[in-house]
Amino acid sequence: MRQKHMLSPTLRSVAEAEMMSHQLLLKAGFIRQLAAGIYSFLPLGFKVLHKVETIVREEMDKIGAQEVLLPSLHPSELWEETGRKKSYGPELMQLQDRHGREFVLGPTHEEVITDLLRDEVNSYKKLPISLYQIQSKFRDERRPRSGLLRGREFMMKDAYSFHANRASLDEQYALFYQAYQNIFSRLGLDFRAVEADSGAMGGTDTHEFMALSEAGEDTVAMCLSCEYASNIEMAKVMHDGGQRTQIEVPVLTEIETKGQKTIAEVASFLDIQAEQVVKSLLFIADDTPVLVLIRGDHDINEVKIKNLLGASVIELAEESQVIAVCGAPSGYLGPVGLKKQVKVIADHAVADMNDMVVGANKKDYHLRHVQHTRDFEIDEVADVRNIQTGDTCPSCGGQIQFSRGIEIGHVFKLGTRYSEVMSGTILDENGKTQPYIMGCYGIGISRAVASIVEQHHDENGIIWPASVAPYAIHLIAVNMKNETQASVAEEVYQMLQKEGIEVLFDDRPERAGVKFKDGDLFGIPLRITVGSKAGEGIIEYKNRRSGVGDALHLQDLSKALPDLMKELM
Amino acid sequence: MRQKHMLSPTLRSVAEAEMMSHQLLLKAGFIRQLAAGIYSFLPLGFKVLHKVETIVREEMDKIGAQEVLLPSLHPSELWEETGRKKSYGPELMQLQDRHGREFVLGPTHEEVITDLLRDEVNSYKKLPISLYQIQSKFRDERRPRSGLLRGREFMMKDAYSFHANRASLDEQYALFYQAYQNIFSRLGLDFRAVEADSGAMGGTDTHEFMALSEAGEDTVAMCLSCEYASNIEMAKVMHDGGQRTQIEVPVLTEIETKGQKTIAEVASFLDIQAEQVVKSLLFIADDTPVLVLIRGDHDINEVKIKNLLGASVIELAEESQVIAVCGAPSGYLGPVGLKKQVKVIADHAVADMNDMVVGANKKDYHLRHVQHTRDFEIDEVADVRNIQTGDTCPSCGGQIQFSRGIEIGHVFKLGTRYSEVMSGTILDENGKTQPYIMGCYGIGISRAVASIVEQHHDENGIIWPASVAPYAIHLIAVNMKNETQASVAEEVYQMLQKEGIEVLFDDRPERAGVKFKDGDLFGIPLRITVGSKAGEGIIEYKNRRSGVGDALHLQDLSKALPDLMKELM
Repeated sequence: MRQKHMLSPTLRSVAEAEMMSHQLLLKAGFIRQLAAGIYSFLPLGFKVLHKVETIVREEMDKIGAQEVLLPSLHPSELWEETGRKKSYGPELMQLQDRHGREFVLGPTHEEVITDLLRDEVNSYKKLPISLYQIQSKFRDERRPRSGLLRGREFMMKDAYSFHANRASLDEQYALFYQAYQNIFSRLGLDFRAVEADSGAMGGTDTHEFMALSEAGEDTVAMCLSCEYASNIEMAKVMHDGGQRTQIEVPVLTEIETKGQKTIAEVASFLDIQAEQVVKSLLFIADDTPVLVLIRGDHDINEVKIKNLLGASVIELAEESQVIAVCGAPSGYLGPVGLKKQVKVIADHAVADMNDMVVGANKKDYHLRHVQHTRDFEIDEVADVRNIQTGDTCPSCGGQIQFSRGIEIGHVFKLGTRYSEVMSGTILDENGKTQPYIMGCYGIGISRAVASIVEQHHDENGIIWPASVAPYAIHLIAVNMKNETQASVAEEVYQMLQKEGIEVLFDDRPERAGVKFKDGDLFGIPLRITVGSKAGEGIIEYKNRRSGVGDALHLQDLSKALPDLMKELM
Repeated sequence: MRQKHMLSPTLRSVAEAEMMSHQLLLKAGFIRQLAAGIYSFLPLGFKVLHKVETIVREEMDKIGAQEVLLPSLHPSELWEETGRKKSYGPELMQLQDRHGREFVLGPTHEEVITDLLRDEVNSYKKLPISLYQIQSKFRDERRPRSGLLRGREFMMKDAYSFHANRASLDEQYALFYQAYQNIFSRLGLDFRAVEADSGAMGGTDTHEFMALSEAGEDTVAMCLSCEYASNIEMAKVMHDGGQRTQIEVPVLTEIETKGQKTIAEVASFLDIQAEQVVKSLLFIADDTPVLVLIRGDHDINEVKIKNLLGASVIELAEESQVIAVCGAPSGYLGPVGLKKQVKVIADHAVADMNDMVVGANKKDYHLRHVQHTRDFEIDEVADVRNIQTGDTCPSCGGQIQFSRGIEIGHVFKLGTRYSEVMSGTILDENGKTQPYIMGCYGIGISRAVASIVEQHHDENGIIWPASVAPYAIHLIAVNMKNETQASVAEEVYQMLQKEGIEVLFDDRPERAGVKFKDGDLFGIPLRITVGSKAGEGIIEYKNRRSGVGDALHLQDLSKALPDLMKELM
């Protein structure tokens, strides 16, 4: 492609963009904003998008998923059937047609695909079936920002699988999981498959694929030594089983701590560490109050408490409930001398503590030298806190660290969530009617493009992995007005094209500085420069990532190419 | 692909579908309707769609058009700028986002692309630029019908070119025109490029590409001998220049023709041919009345009259105007004895007539034996009628016939229609500000799929051209319960895949009749059947289009394949 007539308007600065990917994709002329969260892909940006799509398509086809294309306009009735017309909230874009019929602009296609299958597939013999599509999706984000990382119209790959039994779903899930590993590896992404909470279906039934990046909105707990990764809510905290050392604990003492409510305030006031203070939190689990104790330096994990109690709803108690149960306002709660009998759950770390500080259940007072069993009873010891940096990896015993992540994919066992309410059923082997068992599998295609940029750039611009680079080689003629340079560059251009290499030829009548700056922004993996030594048949190459380059005689280029290209992989 | 788990639900009858393409695509399980005019592409249908897209993409890339992807959500303000928010009418689908901002769902992208370019390209040096995209479009048809031929959400390729001068536009237009010829030829379509009216830009500045088919909504006038084709409005009627033969014409006579108003009624009442009667029509051209005369067996062409008069608006006169000018109600108009002086335009064929019948400008009366010049004056003789079957081809002198056509593409010189109102300008070579000169070029991708089916089917199903067939070979194992057949079929399947051939393997435990019926519906070009002679290593092949087939020894298949595949081209 000749750059002279390519629409690739570069910018030297972009005021409004915060994220690096947003900045660089704008600067390099890969995208332009049409409205908040709504972007046009310009030629270079489209090329990358298309390459990502192609990799996704190849890996989907490889596991036998069948490509379809479902409409963006969904009759509202389908979303009413599943209750999501209400529950999806204001992110759901809606419209009426000329006859006043209501439609939803598809943000996802569970309703439409279940509707399709329920009409067409009614026997276990035809299952499993896996279908996917690559398509623009619509989600009316309240504050779209971050460029392609969170848009209102964006490109998704969504897939759905249908099964007659759980084992078949498990098998397909494993195939998708592996395909996702392949896809994100081929995209050159540093990512982790993260265990995530899937509600009713249990622990290993959903994974989020996270591109590791400071630009991410999610926090991932991951192991420094092994592949373990989990979102914080899900990560199990390892307990070494060590009992507390039986030391001599002074007798319990009440002390005035006027106005000192937070752990930090209390610790500072008493000149002790936060880990010597116990945080007491009163929850209402399905109408029953429960007091949960964690160490002052730990964070509570409500999901774990909810799962521990098997509760369907769990909420922090309101102030009136706190006073009714504990006799004091929050900030002064503790397990000693409660007004009402209430179940006390302690985190493992609390059970290991000696000589703790707790609230006195009396405004402006705490208790020092508290020792459980001696001064109060714990009803249940359990893992109820969030994992922290430095904790032990539940998989290998290594050390946990935190990282920010961008969710670029998820695989999810839906079960019968949709098939039941929509009467999507089959006759099973015994002639019995059963709802389909379903899985769903998403990849944010345009978000993946931005994630690649977040991970692959330097201060001068983007550095595309070869697999998704818009072109493999950026051929720059330094001075097109110099006839020798222009004709040597033309010769190289023709030669590279003959070799079947995707090459962008900067044939613009621009100054060298502009050309190199634009070239760095574009991030094409290999640059070939035709400059002042063109007359002697000398050209130069440079690897965008490593910066490694050299001069080369024109007649050696063809021979050198395979090695140069290999280095880009 | 193994058919057992493919989503390809065939139907034996479809009540609601009228068009053959609609019927067959439903029956063969290529598409399903989600809502009126809104379709899902199932795996086989998607494969065809994708192949059509790929052909379009290849030909667009070949002429240097750059692929982009513009949003479907357009801020309404852009459509207000061009006045199309109103003028587009109720086919424009509209919605509001959560903040009450108004959006249009793009049916076409002139506004968005002009908005993009006006921000980015401001010098003639960067032009010409041609951009295209392949994308779902939205148009709220009042009565969506005919399946993919006229939907509300459909796949389009739209392209836009930007130029600094007219010559550059002409050049690009020619490239697109040729690319369209290539595309539709590769799709296996019988089509014509038809001259169409482009309003202000003149005669050869817009072409519609019509797939010839009885299912079409348009009528095309085309030559039996040459490539000439035109929509009826545009086709020039050739006049041999022959003067009327000077025969003795009896004296003009008024006769009562009570209640006989139409040409047919008058001709029948007087027992003469329609071509002996003159049809007189009063038009109001920009407030000025004009009487137009055409032969009774001809159809009036308002576009020609409008162009002839250089009028901006032309309409048939209302009854009150007719009476004011002619003194009689319509049905009895004529050029003799008009109440008011009015310009009289006659079609060439009228100027050639002798002894005509015209209205008497008196209710229930006509005049016989009328001779122009003797009885009334013609102010201007011109081509003001529609071309007809049997007329002379304006290009080669051959014979015109009519055909129905489906519009599958158009190329259009927009000129400055959008750039002027949207201030899309460049500095030209002289440093002067000029609006872009634009072209636009569309292809209905999903409509092309349906058009192919309209042209390629028989009573048993679709017959895909090899270029867009979902698979090249349909391998049918007649009886999968027979182990020999199953294993021979499996062997053939593996072999064909190894050869890189796209093959669909019917491995379903269905009866032979079902398999062959489904196979005919699918329309895959070559069938290979593994049946009862599998034990002897004998299989069969059959060309879906020609019906030609034969038995073949397994070990000869590999050698025979190249020839068999060549026949499918």
